[in-house]
Amino acid sequence: MAAKSFTALTGFRDFTPRDCSLRNYLFETWRTVARTYGFVEYDTPVLEDTGLYLKKSGGELSSQLFRFEDQGGRDVCLRPEVTASLARLAAQHQRDFPKPLKWFEIGQCYRYEKPQKGRGREFYQFNVDILGEAGPQADAELIALAIDTMRAFGFKQEDFMVRVSDRQAWLDFAAEHKIDESRIPDLLQVIDKLERAKPEVSAEKLEELGLDLETVQTFIRNPESASFAYESIRADLEARGLDAYIELDLSIVRGLAYYTGVVFEVFDRSKSMRAVAGGGRYDTLVSTISNGSVDMPATGFAMGDYVIRNFIEETTDPRMQLEVWLQRQAAACDVFLVLADEDKRPEALNILSDLRQAGISCDMTFTGGKVGKQFQRAEQSGARFALVIGSELPELKLKVLACRTEETCHVLGLADWLTDRIQQPDGPLLA
Amino acid sequence: MAAKSFTALTGFRDFTPRDCSLRNYLFETWRTVARTYGFVEYDTPVLEDTGLYLKKSGGELSSQLFRFEDQGGRDVCLRPEVTASLARLAAQHQRDFPKPLKWFEIGQCYRYEKPQKGRGREFYQFNVDILGEAGPQADAELIALAIDTMRAFGFKQEDFMVRVSDRQAWLDFAAEHKIDESRIPDLLQVIDKLERAKPEVSAEKLEELGLDLETVQTFIRNPESASFAYESIRADLEARGLDAYIELDLSIVRGLAYYTGVVFEVFDRSKSMRAVAGGGRYDTLVSTISNGSVDMPATGFAMGDYVIRNFIEETTDPRMQLEVWLQRQAAACDVFLVLADEDKRPEALNILSDLRQAGISCDMTFTGGKVGKQFQRAEQSGARFALVIGSELPELKLKVLACRTEETCHVLGLADWLTDRIQQPDGPLLA
Repeated sequence: MAAKSFTALTGFRDFTPRDCSLRNYLFETWRTVARTYGFVEYDTPVLEDTGLYLKKSGGELSSQLFRFEDQGGRDVCLRPEVTASLARLAAQHQRDFPKPLKWFEIGQCYRYEKPQKGRGREFYQFNVDILGEAGPQADAELIALAIDTMRAFGFKQEDFMVRVSDRQAWLDFAAEHKIDESRIPDLLQVIDKLERAKPEVSAEKLEELGLDLETVQTFIRNPESASFAYESIRADLEARGLDAYIELDLSIVRGLAYYTGVVFEVFDRSKSMRAVAGGGRYDTLVSTISNGSVDMPATGFAMGDYVIRNFIEETTDPRMQLEVWLQRQAAACDVFLVLADEDKRPEALNILSDLRQAGISCDMTFTGGKVGKQFQRAEQSGARFALVIGSELPELKLKVLACRTEETCHVLGLADWLTDRIQQPDGPLLA
Repeated sequence: MAAKSFTALTGFRDFTPRDCSLRNYLFETWRTVARTYGFVEYDTPVLEDTGLYLKKSGGELSSQLFRFEDQGGRDVCLRPEVTASLARLAAQHQRDFPKPLKWFEIGQCYRYEKPQKGRGREFYQFNVDILGEAGPQADAELIALAIDTMRAFGFKQEDFMVRVSDRQAWLDFAAEHKIDESRIPDLLQVIDKLERAKPEVSAEKLEELGLDLETVQTFIRNPESASFAYESIRADLEARGLDAYIELDLSIVRGLAYYTGVVFEVFDRSKSMRAVAGGGRYDTLVSTISNGSVDMPATGFAMGDYVIRNFIEETTDPRMQLEVWLQRQAAACDVFLVLADEDKRPEALNILSDLRQAGISCDMTFTGGKVGKQFQRAEQSGARFALVIGSELPELKLKVLACRTEETCHVLGLADWLTDRIQQPDGPLLA
């Protein structure tokens, strides 16, 4: 048998330090914005009872599950998303928390799909949900958070918009046009496909429901079709100074069966018009998952890491902001110790230990060797400073690696001095 | 069919906000210490080719794997640990990085075991590794990092110690006692079990190898049995002021087959004598995983989240330090807006949006209502301040919730004023 060389599974990513730093940038931005909005973080298991996800999605996701029987004979799956787990958790613990719950989660999800640009078999999702509040204020809060997340990444009004819709408007429309309740899912499905399907295909399907395409398109174009919830959301966002970011678009209904009211999607305004994030109200899910034992209105949205990463990398300002982060994170340490006199290794280790104890990120080579090589290693590490330890001890030299300027310092009080020095700019060259 | 109530799978944890905060405390401490030591973060997939882990562990972990065939017919498993993935990744990418690599990962691992106190079917592991450096300085660096991780959690010298051993000492011992190379795994296995097994059982097994228990015990007790690597490590840690934390203990060999040299374990000094972390040198793994195409010495250690969490909660100072963190994190926001005049909701939303834009974590109720109820909600949120918005606008009142002292402020320049105010203590009561 030929020796097999191992690689990551198709659709799964290794995160080398640069990729990991980029991922952490997304996580940190998501966390910061969510906390600014008063949301708290939770997490749920990566592996769940398959029934939980089949029950939630009505089987829609079942063909994409990483599903198996565990050693105890349980039918389990890697979570394809997290909302069903959240509904389970919220139903179990809701008594322990004042309502509404404002919770967020950053977690990895898994779907067996054909890998392509912008989609793998695993992805990270930022999930933000409000449970226990039925009013449109909660939807407005989430839309505002979605907008501020985009702004935190450096996106501007010309880069994206939020298309807001409300399934209630379609329920009202259906009632007005005497469409049977049982046919509403069919209606929503035609609306969902309207932008991509051929007009004659949509027209034919609508005809089966006793509707014509023109009537539907007129309803979508008519600003008067907006629901009460939409109007409240618009007024709320106007008060926040964020109304310019949203527009009514009743052609948005979102595929997943479980949405019950307001739905929205964050769109990239450029040619590609990708959905960067999406969500909406799902007032019946907690009851469904808990078999009716807990009834709790809920609304939420999710943003995946693939699309937002691509969008950031394709847009000038967000990309530059990311580059600054990566540059700063690329440094493995702030101070690299250069041992100019091998006899001083014990003293160097002592200094290293003291500086680290003081919270200064620093490093040195394991094997000493030529000073030039050590400086090379210092530069590779991305450190801002090299601290040269030689025969002049207890006196030391601090070099700024970018410009090779040199300062003298002393072992006594070194950690304090250096902590302070790191806060200072590098003098004339950077002034 | 009776309706089924969903719960998390046996051995899997939900992280409610408090648990999530505690988990993040471990992660943040791990990250901070690793970065202070100049390590950079990476990550690898949760799902891997089963062959990768069977190859690494020699089948040792195979009975504990969450293993299944994916939709594409691949034999895959949830990673039981991460070192094999690291070896794969390092072999693939080593040309892109100057050596040695100083890398760390915080990731979830999965083992199908009987759940019990201090062990689930998933756990988080902090993995710290140095690849590309064969000298004992790298082992010393890792031991120092393990010690400083414990100290960062608030543990003191009386709480823990690091027992250091070296398989090389046993190889030398075997050579001296003419034990065939093929029997060395058997010898290491007896040593590994020595502390827990009955003396007569160990004696019998040693006899099969042509040894008597007394000889082995004398070797273990004799400080002269220390290897060259141990002596270097001790001297290195002495220079760092950390030698009091370690002791030579040749009875440690660590079960996993793949260790090749220095091994160590961090022990809880209390009665329970749990191993809190452990690791060692595995100079042949990268070559094994890469089928000999890359040869790279390596050393590393891992710390799981279950044991360290229990140990922290059982030890006074570390527990108090954790409590301070949880207390601080328990606040969902810093400032809670109380709407004393419902007509001012648009203005309140505008203020909310401005403050958040300035990075101040703040919140308000969705529905307004009685001021007393809003104050109650403010207190539940853990916020330090309530900002009362009423008919006096543009004047506002800021209340410190802990002591109900009141200050007047103004909408103009509010974000700056509040940013500054948050930095200040609360006056007489806290002075």
